[in-house]
Amino acid sequence: MSALQMPRPEHVKPVELAQAYRLMNHGPTVLVSSSHGGRHNLMAAAWSMPLDFTPAKVCVVIDKATLTRKLVEASGEFTLAVPTRGFAAQTLAVGRTSATDLAEGMDKFSQYQLSWFAGAQAAPLPQACTAWLECSVIPEPHNQQAYDLFIGEVKHAWADERVFSTGHWHPPQDLPQHLQSIHYIAGGSFFAATESFSTEPQAPCISPVL
Amino acid sequence: MSALQMPRPEHVKPVELAQAYRLMNHGPTVLVSSSHGGRHNLMAAAWSMPLDFTPAKVCVVIDKATLTRKLVEASGEFTLAVPTRGFAAQTLAVGRTSATDLAEGMDKFSQYQLSWFAGAQAAPLPQACTAWLECSVIPEPHNQQAYDLFIGEVKHAWADERVFSTGHWHPPQDLPQHLQSIHYIAGGSFFAATESFSTEPQAPCISPVL
Repeated sequence: MSALQMPRPEHVKPVELAQAYRLMNHGPTVLVSSSHGGRHNLMAAAWSMPLDFTPAKVCVVIDKATLTRKLVEASGEFTLAVPTRGFAAQTLAVGRTSATDLAEGMDKFSQYQLSWFAGAQAAPLPQACTAWLECSVIPEPHNQQAYDLFIGEVKHAWADERVFSTGHWHPPQDLPQHLQSIHYIAGGSFFAATESFSTEPQAPCISPVL
Repeated sequence: MSALQMPRPEHVKPVELAQAYRLMNHGPTVLVSSSHGGRHNLMAAAWSMPLDFTPAKVCVVIDKATLTRKLVEASGEFTLAVPTRGFAAQTLAVGRTSATDLAEGMDKFSQYQLSWFAGAQAAPLPQACTAWLECSVIPEPHNQQAYDLFIGEVKHAWADERVFSTGHWHPPQDLPQHLQSIHYIAGGSFFAATESFSTEPQAPCISPVL
């Protein structure tokens, strides 16, 4: 067992697949974890989103010139993880480095000493995230070639029950800041989702002129 | 000219296409505007994301059983708009109603009295948003049929310069609350991006165990 591997934290619980889309519905920054032939890697995905409720599907853009691309294509699997505000600096580091630039045999987990725990599939689940979606690639060669777009069916989903439980995100305003979700803008800057609010559909209505 | 149409607000400025992805990079809720044969419509998209930097591309899921789908397929165009927190109730109303349930000839702009202004393409640009991306569909019949997934090239982009200028979002903490971006969770609840922060990539590092 790698020195970076930890037991699954007790606050990490399975999420029903029918609710898996809720883990990413709000458009957070996500990390992509992959594994093949005993080699792991982690990248920050610029673009990802849910694609279907049931069977749960997601899509993510994975550039050709990446180790992650090779591992995903070889294994037919990938895991999306939703990092926390407390992990923003590491997310940025992971996003700005290419494993292809690292020493032979190194990957970003080992380069940045990122702890992880095992899920149901081979790709490591990185610590300091609040949701994980373990996916099986639905091969679509044209999308993958033309747009670097990968579609996956969610096979297993997990969430940190301190932040997401019974199918709902807890209000961020009630949580420690480091557990808030982050949304990458550009150039090292993120938006933070620091509060949630509810509204009723207002209809009919006159739209405000702002 | 429709009674709902207004002149383009003076604070709405063109955005360079190379920066268009930044208008959606943070994963906000978006509205989809469409037009064909003199008929308009507006829907709330559950799922959308940027797909490429240059040429700028986006993708969005548009369900088959919608008027929007018909208008997009017939016109080959759609416009994505990023609503503000001040427009959350109307966004929810637009998202929960299907134009196919409305009276003959009605659409959601007229049903909810939503003001709009003209962009470069035919689809109306709804008020009370902070960014608009006018797109031309890149036909991908398999994606559209199998996943309701539409890919578009961004042809024109606009932003409210009080909120986004010189390629960057202004810090939400410096703005009136009603101009913040919103991120749909489920069931009438949204996250609000109320603040932005910057960080440096922290590497090498030991990840926090949370």
